[in-house]
Amino acid sequence: MRYCPQCGHAVNMTIPNGDNRLRAVCPSCEHIDYDNPRVITGTIPLYKGKILLCRRNIEPRFGFWTLPAGFMENQETTSEGALRETLEESGSVAKCMQLFSMISIPHINQVHLFYLAELERDDFHATEESSEVALFDLDEIPWNELAFSSVSKTLKFFIEDKKYGTYNFHEETITLNQLSSD
Amino acid sequence: MRYCPQCGHAVNMTIPNGDNRLRAVCPSCEHIDYDNPRVITGTIPLYKGKILLCRRNIEPRFGFWTLPAGFMENQETTSEGALRETLEESGSVAKCMQLFSMISIPHINQVHLFYLAELERDDFHATEESSEVALFDLDEIPWNELAFSSVSKTLKFFIEDKKYGTYNFHEETITLNQLSSD
Repeated sequence: MRYCPQCGHAVNMTIPNGDNRLRAVCPSCEHIDYDNPRVITGTIPLYKGKILLCRRNIEPRFGFWTLPAGFMENQETTSEGALRETLEESGSVAKCMQLFSMISIPHINQVHLFYLAELERDDFHATEESSEVALFDLDEIPWNELAFSSVSKTLKFFIEDKKYGTYNFHEETITLNQLSSD
Repeated sequence: MRYCPQCGHAVNMTIPNGDNRLRAVCPSCEHIDYDNPRVITGTIPLYKGKILLCRRNIEPRFGFWTLPAGFMENQETTSEGALRETLEESGSVAKCMQLFSMISIPHINQVHLFYLAELERDDFHATEESSEVALFDLDEIPWNELAFSSVSKTLKFFIEDKKYGTYNFHEETITLNQLSSD
């Protein structure tokens, strides 16, 4: 941020009174800009024991497979956002069952949420965001072509839990070091 | 937002190509501003069966009691944020045990997270943000003086779970209608 979104004046990076972090502060109108982490919300869409994945038709990670997910928007709940993204990316109508994973990724200021979700029907299609949408058996998951670490981790947790027939909530952190050793 | 944070030009509210929501878009440098929900993260700090609450020394809800919580910051995980806020608001060092509640509040674009946490020591004090910090027995909670609905809901879930000795994860939505009927 270089200019004040309220008055257009150039901002200074400074620690406001009573704060302990650098913020963009406007010397003209005194507006303080707070930049905070964003929530990415999505689903693990299940249909008769298979998992729906989407091949990304957009950057980043164009051409790689992902669980449907995207930025949570204002005026919605985390599960509403997850279902909206599932519809937008795969053309499918799902129903959230439980929050399954919450993954903090501090170096990119994101929190990723994935819900276990059931597809109501075997009904999905390619979309503007996905060049291909398909159901995968658990032993067919394209591990080397997955788009994001949070997706790989979530799918691994799911497969592990499925062995025991009990789906737990999983909290995890992805760090820069972990990424380079993946 | 009235001015572009990248170039200072006045922005237009418009739906960008390939999008379906109004965003602040700069007609000069084409920057698109995405405004997304924020995460509030905090704890239910437990010490020998009691719960630590803080009396707010800041707006909003000055003078009311709350669980320690605040805006998640960039470069931290959800649980790191919860412990940082606990320290800032109550002077106490806690340890997160499990995520206990996640509450979407779509009309104010927030998601509130509360962790069950243990205080290591009976050591806390008033701070810049809290005029008073105290441990409460469960039958002493000042229900009529609680600052936020997400705090009341979380404390009710906790008391209910404690009866059964099993602490579950609780997901909830607070709507404007609910608030006015509280």
